Formats: sequence, structure tokens, C-alpha cells
Amino acid sequence: MRVFNFSAGPAMLPLPVLEQAQAELADWKNSGMSVIEVSHRGKDFVACAAETQALLREVLGVPDNYKVLFLQGGASAQFDAVPLNLAAPGDLVNFIKTGQWSAKAIAASKRQALRVDVIADETASGCTTIPAPGSYEVDPGAAYLHYTPNETIGGVEFDHIPAAGDVPLVADASSTILSRPLDVSAYGVVYAGAQKNMGPAGLCVVLVRDDLIGKARPGTPAILEYAGMAAADSMLNTPPTFSVYLLGLVLSWIQQTGGLAAMAERNRAKAAALYGAIDASGFYSNPVAPNARSWMNVPFLVPDPSLEKTFVQEAWAAGLTNLGGHRSVGGMRASIYNAMPIEGVQALISFMTDFERRKG
Amino acid sequence: MRVFNFSAGPAMLPLPVLEQAQAELADWKNSGMSVIEVSHRGKDFVACAAETQALLREVLGVPDNYKVLFLQGGASAQFDAVPLNLAAPGDLVNFIKTGQWSAKAIAASKRQALRVDVIADETASGCTTIPAPGSYEVDPGAAYLHYTPNETIGGVEFDHIPAAGDVPLVADASSTILSRPLDVSAYGVVYAGAQKNMGPAGLCVVLVRDDLIGKARPGTPAILEYAGMAAADSMLNTPPTFSVYLLGLVLSWIQQTGGLAAMAERNRAKAAALYGAIDASGFYSNPVAPNARSWMNVPFLVPDPSLEKTFVQEAWAAGLTNLGGHRSVGGMRASIYNAMPIEGVQALISFMTDFERRKG
Repeated sequence: MRVFNFSAGPAMLPLPVLEQAQAELADWKNSGMSVIEVSHRGKDFVACAAETQALLREVLGVPDNYKVLFLQGGASAQFDAVPLNLAAPGDLVNFIKTGQWSAKAIAASKRQALRVDVIADETASGCTTIPAPGSYEVDPGAAYLHYTPNETIGGVEFDHIPAAGDVPLVADASSTILSRPLDVSAYGVVYAGAQKNMGPAGLCVVLVRDDLIGKARPGTPAILEYAGMAAADSMLNTPPTFSVYLLGLVLSWIQQTGGLAAMAERNRAKAAALYGAIDASGFYSNPVAPNARSWMNVPFLVPDPSLEKTFVQEAWAAGLTNLGGHRSVGGMRASIYNAMPIEGVQALISFMTDFERRKG
Repeated sequence: MRVFNFSAGPAMLPLPVLEQAQAELADWKNSGMSVIEVSHRGKDFVACAAETQALLREVLGVPDNYKVLFLQGGASAQFDAVPLNLAAPGDLVNFIKTGQWSAKAIAASKRQALRVDVIADETASGCTTIPAPGSYEVDPGAAYLHYTPNETIGGVEFDHIPAAGDVPLVADASSTILSRPLDVSAYGVVYAGAQKNMGPAGLCVVLVRDDLIGKARPGTPAILEYAGMAAADSMLNTPPTFSVYLLGLVLSWIQQTGGLAAMAERNRAKAAALYGAIDASGFYSNPVAPNARSWMNVPFLVPDPSLEKTFVQEAWAAGLTNLGGHRSVGGMRASIYNAMPIEGVQALISFMTDFERRKG
């Protein structure tokens, strides 16, 4: 029996994707080999990687002047790779800080000897808000402006793209990519770990505008250096072949279910239902400002924190798994990525209603 | 129909491993979730990673004063990570050069601003030899001595461990790890990409002696820094969960089939049969010095290079896949890792005999 899995990542995948991967796991394309076993330089896998990239470009609308890189190390690797590729030691960079993931990106830019100016900092609200457009100023001399479109832990999502002028805008889109249309042309770099909306952990997708490639500082590790990876079609070294293959299946599923516009509509409806239930209850609460509420990660609290463990355990027993909040903040969190059907959200709401009735 | 897959990596995996992964791909441990979908911080996956590490320690005999790290980026990431973790800019390091992979490691150490002294260089023989013990001297002031126990492209393997005195010995064991017993205690660092003898591409196993941890230079990217990764049990960021899981299955298979001693005996026999057939033929040839012949990668040539393409194509049609040599050297290459049964080698020898009869 499949459960409704609310894990923040690695996360639920579409069942048709898992079933196809399962059916062909020991024999891919009638080759007598698993996709895990074939050479990354062989024609079948080269075609698979090219097809996956073409699908990503099509589904996401990636402009021609952007490279698509399939890298390793997750978004955490890009925390260091972005400064190494885009800025020299001592350069100024701008950040918008909305939670723990932007804080990690800030720390890495400092580690790479950049001068960091946090031009908007939502710490005062407990990172339950996003800065209003026009409430901060981007330094025209900054090497880039970095922000986190969706904070997975706090459940805070931007409802707009920050204006950065001529400064390259860099986004850690790990937990929002493919959940709705994205205007890639507004960005210098978009990076995203795969393990939320794209596939297995171990793959990181990087979209980078051509003019930003080729400026890496000396000593940048080869696996993090955009120019070398772009020139080698992300095969400077052996890529995570199974993850690239699975991303291809996920993209096909998105395309077959209506693309990103349809996905956005489903995600909007799922989020609206869940926030609606929370707000209507008087028992559950979500601390995030309405305009900053994430479509993907919905944290919520109960009045008595000692009930949290019971909630998570009883929900798990009812087939609603991984509802514990991040270990740093506690509470509950429902991650409702693309693969979570509306039926899962409805089942969660029913459980919440019943739990409130029994414990409220 | 399963084929005999001679790919150099990603490579053939044991069929029982693939079948178990396939059976539980959509429902792991009756959780209602795929192993790809579960949280890396959840108790099931934490147990899986711990079990995989314990199995690796047991099968390989990893001493207690070594950390086992599960990282990303493959061996290529370690080409940069080793210098970043073990040496300061300007430090002296020693290398033994036996082929293209040692050359890549050398290039990365230079990129990381180290003074590289290649104390033994087999270029003169076309990298068909290994240096004799005692024919080179390790500088006692070197930060490390690096070598490549098995060169995947050239098919050159060390039959001994180079003596390094008190200098930490570092090995890229990507294509030899788990093929025979290994005295880990002789090394400072052993690293290996998983995609030959361990599992899917996208995982790199690093064994590092405790006293070498904590010396990384400032600016080392977090995902490559040993101390942080060791302290976080390789979960500083999301690990490549599916690959770690599959490594666990591969290690169980090794254990169930007799461990590394039995594996070594099978690999020795497979290599002996194939080299024996090559040497006896007068048609096929292998250029490598007998004491340096790899048990894992067996390159061979035919007198007329125009026959190579025909050989590879006809072999493929006969269920013997991926026998083309590395694109940089041509010829043929049979990679006969752990998962290749003796029956596969026998089938290859039969094909070779028949091909020689028809074309010789």
C-alpha cells in the first residue's frame, strides 16, 4: 500500500515514474542491462541525457542563452560553487535572507572570501515574511544578488521575482523548481537539488546564463566549475546516471499531466485547501505572512507542543508519513510537492480535523 | 535476456542486487515508500546508511581509526578534495604516474597550488608498467604520496602497495576496491567512485585516517571537507540515498558469496583465463607487463585496427557488450569487475576464438 509521504526531501515521486523505473530496472530499452549499468558515454545514455535536457528546456522554457548543467553535490555544493564561479575574493555580493537556507548560502559566500551585504533580512519577523519590492536596494557593483525563492524549513515563498537591475540574480530553487512556471530569463543562475520535485538525491540542476560562464577563480574544483562542465556536456566526470534518467521520467510525467501551468494550478489548489483548513480551525496555526506562504512546504503548530509527537505518530499510522517539522524548529510540516495528489492533502485535512476533535 | 556487460563503468551489477532493488523499488521495507522517497534523516534510511557503513568496514576490514565517508562527485571530486584537505598552497606532494587517471590527479594537485614531484613516471613505457619497489624515493617532507592502484584505461594494476614511510599514502582505488582484500592501514586516504565495483554512479567512498582530518585549507567547499562531513556522518547535506542503499546490497552480496578472499580468487581466475587466451592466440595482444596486468580491465588489440569496430559490433550482437577501448586509446577493453561471472569471460574467450578463426 502506497502512503501519502509528506517528506521535505527526499520526497514523494509520481507512482507512474516509480513503476516505469521498476519495470525496466534490470533491462533498460531491451539492452539486457540496467540503466544503472550502462556506460555514460554509450549512445543510449548519451541520448537519455540529451532527451532529459531537452525536456527540461521545453517544460521550464529555458532560453537558448542558458546552459543546463547536471551536477553532483546538491544545492549545498552550489553554495560554494556560485561564489567560486561568479566572484573574485573581496568582491561584494548582495543577499536577501529569509531563513536557514539563505543563511547557509551567505555563510558559504563568506567562506569564499566575499564581502557580503545582506540587503534585506527577515530575521526580525522570525523569517515569516518576505521583503516588499522596493524596500531594499541592490548595489549596482555587486557580483550577484542571491535569494531563496522557497525556504523549505520555514515554509516561506516569494510571490514575485526580486528586481536586481543589471546585477545577476541567483536563486536556490531546490524546493520550488518545476512547481509552477519560472521566468528563467530573469536570472543569472538558478540551481536546485533534485530530491524534491525532480528525482533522487544526488543530482543538482544548474541553469546558468552564458555570459556568466568562464569567470571561475583559479583553484575551483573541476566538478564545480561551470565552463568545464558546460564544455563537456556535464560529463567531465561520470554523471549520476540513474538520477538523470529518473529526472527524464519525472519531466515526461509533468508534460503528460499538462506542464507547469497545470502543475501550478494543482499546487495552488492543494496549498489553498491546507492553509484554509489551518486558518479555519483555531487549533492549528501557521506563522507565515499570507503573501509569503509556501505552496510546497506548510509548517503548522498545535497549541500544546506535547501533542506534536502524538500527531506525527498517529498520522504515520494512518498512512500520512513524515509530518514532523524540521529538527531545528519542531512543530509539524507538510511538504506537498508536485507528486502529492490533492487526495493526499484531503486525507491530511481529514486527519487534522479528527485529531482536533479528539485532542482539541 | 541479460547480457555480459564489459563496460568500464558504470558497470555490470550482480543480478540478485538488481532484482532486490527492483522488487522493493516502489515499496521499501513495507513502508509504502520507495527508498528514493524516504527522508535521509528518517530512522529507516539512517539505519540503512549505518548498516552499509558497518558492512563496508567488515568486508574491507577498515580499522577503527579511519572514517568512512559517503560523498558525491566521484573520484574526480577527490582529485581536488585531497589536496584541499591535506596540503597548504606551496606544499610538496609526491606522485607515481602510471596512466591517465594519475595524470588527472596530478593536474588537480597543481591546480590547488601544490609543488608536485612525480617520483616515478611510467610514461617511457607507454604506461604499460609499474615502478619496481625501491626504484624511487619518497620525500619525507611530502604532504602525501598519491598513486592509482589500477589504471582503468591502460589496464595497469599494482601487485603491491608502494612503501611511503611516514608520508601518508593516498590511493584512487575506484576500479580495484572490493575486488580483493585491501590493507587499509597502509593508507592515509583511499577514495573510490562507486560505479565499478560498488553501485550506481554518483557516490564516492572515502576512507580517511583520523589524524588527517581537520587540516583543510580555508575556502574548501563544505561538501568536500572531510572534518565537517565526518562530524555529520556524511549527512552535512542530503546524501545520494539510492546509491548508498544499493552499495549496501552489493556488500551483502559480496559477503554472501564468500567475502573479499573468495572474490579475489574468482577475479584472479577470470583474469588468468582471459590473459591466457590472449597470450596463446598470436592474434590478440595485450601490451602490459605481466606483473602489472589488471585483474579488472583487460585491454587488447588485434593486428589490423580496422577490425576493431567489427569485433565490438559482432560481440555486442552476441550478447557481449561495451568491449570498445577507451576513446582516447582505441582497441578493445574487457572490464571484468566483481559482478562479471566466469561464464561471461568464457563466453568472451569463445567469441574471440571464433572471431580469430574467421578474420585471422
